[in-house]
Amino acid sequence: MSNENIFYPHVSVDCVVFGFDGEKLKVILIERTINEQNELYNDKKLPGSLIFSEEDLDVSANRVLTELTGLKNIYLSQFRTFGSPDRTKNPRDVLWLENTTKLKIGRIITTGYVAMVKIDRKLQFNSDTTTAKWHDVAEVAKMSLAFDHNEIIQWGLKHIRNQVEIQPHLLFELLPTKFTISQLRTLYDVINQVKSDVRNFQKKVAQMPYVVALDELEKGVPHRAARLYRYKK
Amino acid sequence: MSNENIFYPHVSVDCVVFGFDGEKLKVILIERTINEQNELYNDKKLPGSLIFSEEDLDVSANRVLTELTGLKNIYLSQFRTFGSPDRTKNPRDVLWLENTTKLKIGRIITTGYVAMVKIDRKLQFNSDTTTAKWHDVAEVAKMSLAFDHNEIIQWGLKHIRNQVEIQPHLLFELLPTKFTISQLRTLYDVINQVKSDVRNFQKKVAQMPYVVALDELEKGVPHRAARLYRYKK
Repeated sequence: MSNENIFYPHVSVDCVVFGFDGEKLKVILIERTINEQNELYNDKKLPGSLIFSEEDLDVSANRVLTELTGLKNIYLSQFRTFGSPDRTKNPRDVLWLENTTKLKIGRIITTGYVAMVKIDRKLQFNSDTTTAKWHDVAEVAKMSLAFDHNEIIQWGLKHIRNQVEIQPHLLFELLPTKFTISQLRTLYDVINQVKSDVRNFQKKVAQMPYVVALDELEKGVPHRAARLYRYKK
Repeated sequence: MSNENIFYPHVSVDCVVFGFDGEKLKVILIERTINEQNELYNDKKLPGSLIFSEEDLDVSANRVLTELTGLKNIYLSQFRTFGSPDRTKNPRDVLWLENTTKLKIGRIITTGYVAMVKIDRKLQFNSDTTTAKWHDVAEVAKMSLAFDHNEIIQWGLKHIRNQVEIQPHLLFELLPTKFTISQLRTLYDVINQVKSDVRNFQKKVAQMPYVVALDELEKGVPHRAARLYRYKK
């Protein structure tokens, strides 16, 4: 192997955390402020950071998520590593990285982690320069995020779609403890990028022994209150 | 972020290439020779190498596989990145790496790729110090491979199991163009780590419209010749 081809990249982790508010699929992004020739520029990125020298990737992903969002004990699942040399082709990203890390940055390989959490989990911020917030995935697709983070979110979405196909119970990680069939259908549709027929979906749910009807109706809704259901393990 | 925690790891790719000989699931390993205090020591590892400075991970995986096995145009699918600091805890692995690369090695993050290929694909070697060969996956599990390559193979196996569940047609990538139901069942069992009942499996196959019976029997077998089938896309 010829030595000239060898280099020392940086390695980072990025977390794609999905939530569902009953209507829309959401993802957590943090604000980024770039000081570009004394003009401040704001945009958004996934919660992520360089890994530490003695840190395994999984450990790093959990640390970074807690540091940047306050979320603890979240099951993060590794889904793909992004290593294109083009990841740092935008001078704005490199400038921000070099300001933040005080390091000369060449190339960064990042490992993506995905999580599905209930959206009522409280987000907290340790730093006054970043703010973690939920954003509509559909809106985010129209924004230009830092680095290749748009692409990473799309891969994350594809990953949860596959996961839910193998393990349908994962869908319920995103729903409130008590949910309506309409919420379940909306979530199913948004993840699978389909538009289910209301009646056919009711039939499908009737064949899910783990979806149990409760003796309870929705409260405080402007329309006719729907029956609530829960997921039975 | 405190600077002392930052470091420059190396990044590599490793390829887990599965094949099926009609009876057993196989994986390609290459021989490794380590000169340890003037004693030669041999063991085995996955085909893998450090990535080059301008190379994307996918490109690197394909280059490395071709260099070390002669296999070209193989669909390699990324499945997991391994980044434990313990990956380089065995002095033998570090010694071999430093001899091979002429670099001081600290930590290596490796991205695993998996492929399923027909086992009659010809393996060729560009170097006279490495030899790529098919090995029984079951036997390999009892061997002590370089680095964490035993663990990487197990994750690769888990990945193809999930893939085949979502896309059953992938199973046929591993079978000869014409195959018997017994071969299909053996492969199904070895990937899913189950023992299918012969009769039930026949029924399952009858419900696969893409498995088509041919007007042809096996040739040159010591037992009663079984009917041949093919996969119809």
